[in-house]
Amino acid sequence: MTYRIEKDTIGEVKVPEDKLWGAQTERSRNNFKIGKAASMPLEIIYGFAYLKKAAAFTNADAGVLSTEKRDLIAQVCDEILEGKHDNEFPLVIWQTGSGTQSNMNVNEVIANRVHQLQGHKLGEGEKTIAPNDDVNKSQSSNDTFPTGMHIAIYKKIVEVTLPGIQQLRNQLEVKSKAFADVVKIGRTHFMDATPLTLGQEFSGYVSQLDHGLRALENTLPHLLELALGGTAVGTGLNTPKNYAENVAKYIAEFTGYPFVSAENKFEALAAHDALVETHGALKQLAVSLNKIGNDIRMLSSGPRSGIGEINIPANEPGSSIMPGKVNPTQCEALTMVCSQVIGNDFAVTTGGMQGQFELNVFKPVMAANVLESAELLGDASVSFDVNCVRGIEPNQARIDEHLRNSLMLVTALNTKIGYYKAAEIANTAHKNGTTLKEEAVNLGYTTAEEFDEWVKPEDMTNSK
Amino acid sequence: MTYRIEKDTIGEVKVPEDKLWGAQTERSRNNFKIGKAASMPLEIIYGFAYLKKAAAFTNADAGVLSTEKRDLIAQVCDEILEGKHDNEFPLVIWQTGSGTQSNMNVNEVIANRVHQLQGHKLGEGEKTIAPNDDVNKSQSSNDTFPTGMHIAIYKKIVEVTLPGIQQLRNQLEVKSKAFADVVKIGRTHFMDATPLTLGQEFSGYVSQLDHGLRALENTLPHLLELALGGTAVGTGLNTPKNYAENVAKYIAEFTGYPFVSAENKFEALAAHDALVETHGALKQLAVSLNKIGNDIRMLSSGPRSGIGEINIPANEPGSSIMPGKVNPTQCEALTMVCSQVIGNDFAVTTGGMQGQFELNVFKPVMAANVLESAELLGDASVSFDVNCVRGIEPNQARIDEHLRNSLMLVTALNTKIGYYKAAEIANTAHKNGTTLKEEAVNLGYTTAEEFDEWVKPEDMTNSK
Amino acid sequence: MTYRIEKDTIGEVKVPEDKLWGAQTERSRNNFKIGKAASMPLEIIYGFAYLKKAAAFTNADAGVLSTEKRDLIAQVCDEILEGKHDNEFPLVIWQTGSGTQSNMNVNEVIANRVHQLQGHKLGEGEKTIAPNDDVNKSQSSNDTFPTGMHIAIYKKIVEVTLPGIQQLRNQLEVKSKAFADVVKIGRTHFMDATPLTLGQEFSGYVSQLDHGLRALENTLPHLLELALGGTAVGTGLNTPKNYAENVAKYIAEFTGYPFVSAENKFEALAAHDALVETHGALKQLAVSLNKIGNDIRMLSSGPRSGIGEINIPANEPGSSIMPGKVNPTQCEALTMVCSQVIGNDFAVTTGGMQGQFELNVFKPVMAANVLESAELLGDASVSFDVNCVRGIEPNQARIDEHLRNSLMLVTALNTKIGYYKAAEIANTAHKNGTTLKEEAVNLGYTTAEEFDEWVKPEDMTNSK
Amino acid sequence: MTYRIEKDTIGEVKVPEDKLWGAQTERSRNNFKIGKAASMPLEIIYGFAYLKKAAAFTNADAGVLSTEKRDLIAQVCDEILEGKHDNEFPLVIWQTGSGTQSNMNVNEVIANRVHQLQGHKLGEGEKTIAPNDDVNKSQSSNDTFPTGMHIAIYKKIVEVTLPGIQQLRNQLEVKSKAFADVVKIGRTHFMDATPLTLGQEFSGYVSQLDHGLRALENTLPHLLELALGGTAVGTGLNTPKNYAENVAKYIAEFTGYPFVSAENKFEALAAHDALVETHGALKQLAVSLNKIGNDIRMLSSGPRSGIGEINIPANEPGSSIMPGKVNPTQCEALTMVCSQVIGNDFAVTTGGMQGQFELNVFKPVMAANVLESAELLGDASVSFDVNCVRGIEPNQARIDEHLRNSLMLVTALNTKIGYYKAAEIANTAHKNGTTLKEEAVNLGYTTAEEFDEWVKPEDMTNSK
Repeated sequence: MTYRIEKDTIGEVKVPEDKLWGAQTERSRNNFKIGKAASMPLEIIYGFAYLKKAAAFTNADAGVLSTEKRDLIAQVCDEILEGKHDNEFPLVIWQTGSGTQSNMNVNEVIANRVHQLQGHKLGEGEKTIAPNDDVNKSQSSNDTFPTGMHIAIYKKIVEVTLPGIQQLRNQLEVKSKAFADVVKIGRTHFMDATPLTLGQEFSGYVSQLDHGLRALENTLPHLLELALGGTAVGTGLNTPKNYAENVAKYIAEFTGYPFVSAENKFEALAAHDALVETHGALKQLAVSLNKIGNDIRMLSSGPRSGIGEINIPANEPGSSIMPGKVNPTQCEALTMVCSQVIGNDFAVTTGGMQGQFELNVFKPVMAANVLESAELLGDASVSFDVNCVRGIEPNQARIDEHLRNSLMLVTALNTKIGYYKAAEIANTAHKNGTTLKEEAVNLGYTTAEEFDEWVKPEDMTNSK
Repeated sequence: MTYRIEKDTIGEVKVPEDKLWGAQTERSRNNFKIGKAASMPLEIIYGFAYLKKAAAFTNADAGVLSTEKRDLIAQVCDEILEGKHDNEFPLVIWQTGSGTQSNMNVNEVIANRVHQLQGHKLGEGEKTIAPNDDVNKSQSSNDTFPTGMHIAIYKKIVEVTLPGIQQLRNQLEVKSKAFADVVKIGRTHFMDATPLTLGQEFSGYVSQLDHGLRALENTLPHLLELALGGTAVGTGLNTPKNYAENVAKYIAEFTGYPFVSAENKFEALAAHDALVETHGALKQLAVSLNKIGNDIRMLSSGPRSGIGEINIPANEPGSSIMPGKVNPTQCEALTMVCSQVIGNDFAVTTGGMQGQFELNVFKPVMAANVLESAELLGDASVSFDVNCVRGIEPNQARIDEHLRNSLMLVTALNTKIGYYKAAEIANTAHKNGTTLKEEAVNLGYTTAEEFDEWVKPEDMTNSK
Repeated sequence: MTYRIEKDTIGEVKVPEDKLWGAQTERSRNNFKIGKAASMPLEIIYGFAYLKKAAAFTNADAGVLSTEKRDLIAQVCDEILEGKHDNEFPLVIWQTGSGTQSNMNVNEVIANRVHQLQGHKLGEGEKTIAPNDDVNKSQSSNDTFPTGMHIAIYKKIVEVTLPGIQQLRNQLEVKSKAFADVVKIGRTHFMDATPLTLGQEFSGYVSQLDHGLRALENTLPHLLELALGGTAVGTGLNTPKNYAENVAKYIAEFTGYPFVSAENKFEALAAHDALVETHGALKQLAVSLNKIGNDIRMLSSGPRSGIGEINIPANEPGSSIMPGKVNPTQCEALTMVCSQVIGNDFAVTTGGMQGQFELNVFKPVMAANVLESAELLGDASVSFDVNCVRGIEPNQARIDEHLRNSLMLVTALNTKIGYYKAAEIANTAHKNGTTLKEEAVNLGYTTAEEFDEWVKPEDMTNSK
Repeated sequence: MTYRIEKDTIGEVKVPEDKLWGAQTERSRNNFKIGKAASMPLEIIYGFAYLKKAAAFTNADAGVLSTEKRDLIAQVCDEILEGKHDNEFPLVIWQTGSGTQSNMNVNEVIANRVHQLQGHKLGEGEKTIAPNDDVNKSQSSNDTFPTGMHIAIYKKIVEVTLPGIQQLRNQLEVKSKAFADVVKIGRTHFMDATPLTLGQEFSGYVSQLDHGLRALENTLPHLLELALGGTAVGTGLNTPKNYAENVAKYIAEFTGYPFVSAENKFEALAAHDALVETHGALKQLAVSLNKIGNDIRMLSSGPRSGIGEINIPANEPGSSIMPGKVNPTQCEALTMVCSQVIGNDFAVTTGGMQGQFELNVFKPVMAANVLESAELLGDASVSFDVNCVRGIEPNQARIDEHLRNSLMLVTALNTKIGYYKAAEIANTAHKNGTTLKEEAVNLGYTTAEEFDEWVKPEDMTNSK
């Protein structure tokens, strides 16, 4: 490979000739060989592109950057957002905890790309635009990185997580309505209980997701607060007048989302409770989805020796050794995602609790975990809908068989003959392997006619 | 010890003669010898007392319970709420996962206490009031236990957690204002950075708690939803007309809090995402408090070889071996509480994710952990305020010494002479152990007068 | 209440007249009103009693403490270990993170109790024995508290956890052997799979616990290392020659367990990785027990509409509303314990990761969580054995029905007719609701005789 | 893109023409669009390559596979292990929880690659070797995937994690010895305490890692147990005689590691406690490394207003806004890795606890998290050594200044004048801002000569 020389305040560095990054990026590549290369999420880089462009506009408005420089910076930011430079961001999550080197990576790429656009060869001649003094003007890593991560995470949540889960929720509601009259045995403690409809069972899932979506939406205002304008420690040193508010307005305009300047910049740099808050809601959704995925897995179990009350689509051969087997694979993918999200919650928590003084230096690990969880939950919900839920059908024969046999229908007699006698009927039928009706009549607690009138499963699924 | 005989649907049981509980409580005592006795939180028992009274009123209104029985039940519930029967609830958290046996414990105590109030001897004669058919009328463990835990947790949060944290937050704000003019060195990456005021530093803590309090309040609507009226599986079997709404109104009246009937009873029995949601916010507050406690511990470190920028009260001899030592013990208690709360979050999450079909059977462990976290955070915040924060004073001599020596004041020169030259000044001063001013002049980048005019720490703490 | 005056290096304090504790304990009681009173585990106090006695003997041997004082101290330590002073330790977990105040609580109680034993009235006259200079001689909180917690935890694990889990493991093995010939359907992905014996299924549980017990035993050597002799920062300042080794020998003698002096005292004070290590193994056991408890819950589900392949004892009425219901309550208690232990793991981890310089100040919260987990797992295992596992019986009729119907027996044909044809048979039988044999013959892939010879469930449970 | 047709038991599928994978892989690609593509770790694919080759040899030895087929399969496995087919494994972690589709991906790639090697065009003609009946012979996903993941994880740990951490541990020991005579102030509760040497401080880190490495090694025997031979449910159905033992021997031979057949195959399929166990040790190491990284961050803080007792290498410009700043970036990368590992522990735990009956279906998520943690800890340890620890030097001037000023040297007087008088000296000096010696003499508790003789910091760092 051939190299050119780039330099920073420490000295000279050899950089691959055709790459747009500069000295600090290259140092970081060499100093942090940890895990897979380029693990820093591209979404954060795009967040930087939005904010670098917004900063350039705000600086120009304030008269501290020329409009020529503004437009050149903006042009490269747009190229980055179009995905034209995805290979120019080789750094890993496991770098400086403020993300300084990814901030510099963006600054360097913009400055060098402008150099190219001006017709120069990389590494030759004075740069038109300086990474620190121009691209990074009125900024610090300490306020840009959190701004980039808020932009990236907010976008992911409103563009992937919320619509994905909403889509699944809506499909579950469709099913809930379609199954409104399918009376089936209920199960508590995994044991036979009194009946409900399959639609009611699914309505619980809908309600879980409704509550979860609301909880996630509750966290968005904190995410919309941007640190930009705080610079190094939150005071806004070296920024022009009204910079923080103005730059937030540009970001809102460029992204189309209602971002605002953080009410307290010291909090916005030193703590990332906004990420802890958002991920808390993602974890709650994982808890809900784990229950839903697990229920559907178990309801569809069998086909002959399980619960078997619903059928799910057979999307692939289930087993490499057992022919003809169909497995609840979408449930498994979904619940594995839930495990990951629950784990990620503790990575985020552990990072979040360790801020010190004016800075939290667990920014990249926190941001990467929130982004992963947000994406996985959104994607998995869509996959679960499309490949599983929309194909769910009740297995009516099985449902009827279970309902007919259940001893827990005896509960309907509580209000007629009292809990103790009802229990005696159920226990006797269980011991003898007989039906409730037989034993109710045998024990002389009801007539056959009374039994038929009082014990109607369909009546047991609704309080009056 | 002497015993009397009580019985349930399984048979006879010997119960300590003077105890109000009955057969099922005694069975549970014997079958679950796990951990400390009576670990089931009393707050949940009190929650049951509210709901049993409310159910009696609702049942009486609906004509399914006599007003005599209603009043007797209510009388005992009031006694329980006055703390007169605290020793009658001997069960542990580690019982049936629906809390059935604690529900029966309450039912049995009420029935036996009524028996006493009617002038009878325990264990003699027919009970006026039956634990199942009267006290438990229109109820199931499956809807009473979640109702009891929501009442208990909501009360704890609004009576202990929120006011405790609010008190601490207010004290931090008092300090933030008092320290508004104390200019000090900032620290990022635990390294010297540009200056800010001590008041600004504390304002970040206030903002963290403001956000956290808001996040906790966001979770209250879900907690206010009560499962009561769902009975066994959520359908409301065996309840009179409009029972769920009416009983919620009585609970709201008796507690003074705006409880409502859950919008979906299937969710309210089968999932306890409301607890996951609330505890997520408690965990966020733990993350915030851990940062705050840790900062104050470090800011007060020394007295001679640490940071030492603030003084905290000396509440106790610090060391059993090192005479004269004063330790940040309130910070330590607070951050230990944070560790516990973060751990509890996982107990709650693990329980919450494992509901199956119509019931989540991790109710007691989830409720106990949320209650513990809510209490610890509230108590620790008050203790931290009273015994530490309100006594914090700046150590002005130390603050000035740090500020005077700092090399990071050079940042003020960025906008005057550029980042590169500023860096050269700082690096040279660092190498030579000299001051920035000396080197700025030596290097010919500023005059002494320019330096003094451009580098004013107090001007660096506010963007214009 | 009446009080007497006690004092420490800070000044005078009013102490309840009849209590043995002194000034520092009382200060701590007042300064840390967090959570339930007296939450500091008594097991740790007993650990202190062992070590205070051992220190007195070692100091006497070294000639720095008189034998009279040694014997007086030892006498009170023995009284504490007999449980005679359990009410004299009122402090909470949420105190100084080094446990200094509990160390002083023990020192003060010993000194005051000696005063009483000498015939003096509390608070009158000069103390024969000084809490700091005599009882605490050659010690610091920083090395005594970790020593006390290692003693407490080691004892709990070898006296409660290991025997409790071993007992359960042995019972599961008894069942595994008893069920060695019960051929039943296997389930993978919760779906019907090829057969195995119920004994084989239970042998997996035995193997899980065997591995877990081994993992827990692997952690004991680290726990056996005692910090005592490190004093304030690990250097052993103010201790006589060979003190650390000698005091460990006395502790080994008094407790009957092979405790040794820690190989590195700096690690033993500044980190509590030994607790993280031990709790990691406890968490692994919780993971195993959760699987076992969950399997047994599901295997016993029904009685009519679930899996129902085993019967478990009916220990209590299962439902307050559904008469005759029997629930897997021991499984629920056990799995709730598992949730708690998994949560506790994070409290321990969070505390463990935050040591700073020469001291970890999360000692009480770490120790309390490890003790709780160790006790809960031991107790719950015994309860699960006695009240559930030993009463498990196969439900042969159900098992046979499931086995007979299963389509996965087709797997036996793979080696005879190939995976693809076997799959076709299974799929056809599934579609038509017929038997494998019918379709195998219909499709012309086997004769009826071949089918019977090749597809024998009992032969499918053992590789040759 | 052009496609060819492949088929499986469900039907036909269009597959990209030039890809080696077949129908089931393509179905999985389409059915699981969750997160980044190809997230299934290649290390697991390589684990499969070892086991497929070993199975082919074992099958051939048993006479159930021809030696021609054996050699063809082995040839492709070798190609995979050489990295020649890395792009042929496009599946994600979030698939079937048994990893069935990745098993089939490997089976299909091997079968198609053999087809190519035989001179055929993909998609044309009958395959020489069948994915299920030949490549997967005597196997199931249920035993191959856990075997593949054990191989992958064991290799990662012995090739990356253990040597990486050992290297760091050795470097810390080098430093510990080099700093053996650097007497410095100790810090407990982050407060000044009695002295120790910098070498002793570092020896604590060495001891932490020694204990952690031992803990990790303790988990290896469980990891060395291979599930292969259990096939679908653990019984070994459809395997030749002694297959399990023989195939483990071949795997041991091919990998060079002492793998053995699992003692209980039911455990090996239904539970992945081995992964929970191993990750528990990785988490313990993360806890240790977090403490070490945090200490070094704080010891190097400053340069002028922090602790500043050591200097670390300046690897990159520290700040994009504060010129001349050098940050502890390696500490930050390391502690971020620790946060990730701690989070991963809960993903592994959550997956591990949810096995059901004969299978745990959280295999891919568990394996991926263990692999990530193992790699990150190894890599980060090496990076931390090379780029930080080996360049650490004491800042002697600062160390001396701190030591000289410390009030805690007074502890040396405890054994001479008693704890109370020593405390008085320290408190007076603190109040007056004077030295211990001045106040000791003023108060008349020592002469100047006695003070100098009794209070020697270097003598305080070793017990006699």
